[in-house]
Amino acid sequence: MSNSRFEERAKKYFGLEVTDRDRAIFEGAITLGAIYHQFVGTPVSRDAGVVSDLERAIEKTMALQPYIESVKVKIDTSDIGEGTHPYDYSEVSGRNLSVELVSRYGKARVHMGMKFVAELDFPLMFIERIEEED
Amino acid sequence: MSNSRFEERAKKYFGLEVTDRDRAIFEGAITLGAIYHQFVGTPVSRDAGVVSDLERAIEKTMALQPYIESVKVKIDTSDIGEGTHPYDYSEVSGRNLSVELVSRYGKARVHMGMKFVAELDFPLMFIERIEEED
Amino acid sequence: MSNSRFEERAKKYFGLEVTDRDRAIFEGAITLGAIYHQFVGTPVSRDAGVVSDLERAIEKTMALQPYIESVKVKIDTSDIGEGTHPYDYSEVSGRNLSVELVSRYGKARVHMGMKFVAELDFPLMFIERIEEED
Amino acid sequence: MSNSRFEERAKKYFGLEVTDRDRAIFEGAITLGAIYHQFVGTPVSRDAGVVSDLERAIEKTMALQPYIESVKVKIDTSDIGEGTHPYDYSEVSGRNLSVELVSRYGKARVHMGMKFVAELDFPLMFIERIEEED
Repeated sequence: MSNSRFEERAKKYFGLEVTDRDRAIFEGAITLGAIYHQFVGTPVSRDAGVVSDLERAIEKTMALQPYIESVKVKIDTSDIGEGTHPYDYSEVSGRNLSVELVSRYGKARVHMGMKFVAELDFPLMFIERIEEED
Repeated sequence: MSNSRFEERAKKYFGLEVTDRDRAIFEGAITLGAIYHQFVGTPVSRDAGVVSDLERAIEKTMALQPYIESVKVKIDTSDIGEGTHPYDYSEVSGRNLSVELVSRYGKARVHMGMKFVAELDFPLMFIERIEEED
Repeated sequence: MSNSRFEERAKKYFGLEVTDRDRAIFEGAITLGAIYHQFVGTPVSRDAGVVSDLERAIEKTMALQPYIESVKVKIDTSDIGEGTHPYDYSEVSGRNLSVELVSRYGKARVHMGMKFVAELDFPLMFIERIEEED
Repeated sequence: MSNSRFEERAKKYFGLEVTDRDRAIFEGAITLGAIYHQFVGTPVSRDAGVVSDLERAIEKTMALQPYIESVKVKIDTSDIGEGTHPYDYSEVSGRNLSVELVSRYGKARVHMGMKFVAELDFPLMFIERIEEED
């Protein structure tokens, strides 16, 4: 099925009032929620090779989701131990995971992200900027 | 910290162009993505008690996410075996999970959902309706 | 397929040296790892109803796994905020999740569990006791 | 804390009857269950680069778990569409995921794995071989 045929069929399930802007926000936010709940709990260490492989894998797999233009993932491992014994590793969590994501649908492009915000003691997801072409 | 103090702080991380409608879509869609990627893979059987307990647990825990007004979850177990041997059970998947969710932020309320759509062979997430108060 | 027919077929994939004791440990440990990595990240609050519904759902769904005789789950919510604003909730993590599980295969029954151990700063999984019938 | 100091403390939580063989099976099986329930649901496509990056990331992160000597992961993407439209991708599931894992504790080394077994219609986890030094 071609891209346009497929999208035509999918669109029937959306309300008529849904704009390109609404849809771009929707698709990007799904992927933010997906990243967090898919990967939280994954073991990580201070080993730069392990961490960067995981960051790339998250970016590439989650960019497959519909209407995602780019995904950038950073896992901060500065609080993790040196790996001196078998239990000395940590895991992906809301405290060490940050994401920048761009979604695009039709004439709208949305920049969004997540990061741990100390003043809120919360891994906040937020919309940074919305671009709409005329 | 009071609700309004907290939201005031969170709001600084959002672009100024972000409307109540944008935000309600954003928060609801995060939770749709979260439900799928948190619970896919959970064992389920035809036992109605097991399934309804899981449905209620998903609804109640995911309704804790910010600005979610209601969550309704249904797991279709009609394709699952009778449980006649130790491996005769199944799991939550895009084929048997459906969700209806209402998010609300300020003057906007958004009805969204997910269900498996046979003609697309895909567990589609969609925005059903957007309500905005004057 | 009957239980015994099915198990006969499954057994071909196991080494001949694998005993009932080995197998009971194996099946129970799979489920411990499964519980942690399936449910870590699930939102929870201090609301006793939400927490006990989630505990029961984890117990009932994970008891479906092969050769699991019982599962008991406790999520400690004493460190979670009062829920005074939309971001004032927490999630299932290695620090608040504890599990007691009994697996049984043939003549062996194994009691195992997981809990956060402060002196190790780690959510330790452990075998408490192994029973073997003559 | 040194490796031996740490393990000494951890060992107190295990029954005295637990042998090296028991423990090696236990630690390996936890990781099999963890891999399945952590990564099932992750988006994948036929793109060989995406898939091999994810396979490597799973291998490297899950090898961090205690007493895991090696992990080999294969995700079969032959059933996935060509990616001709935004919804034309798939996800990690029990049908396409296979794992080979070696755990080692003291004098015991255990070879185990998981793969989808058609005759059982189930993603079976199994112990292939147990080696014990004198």
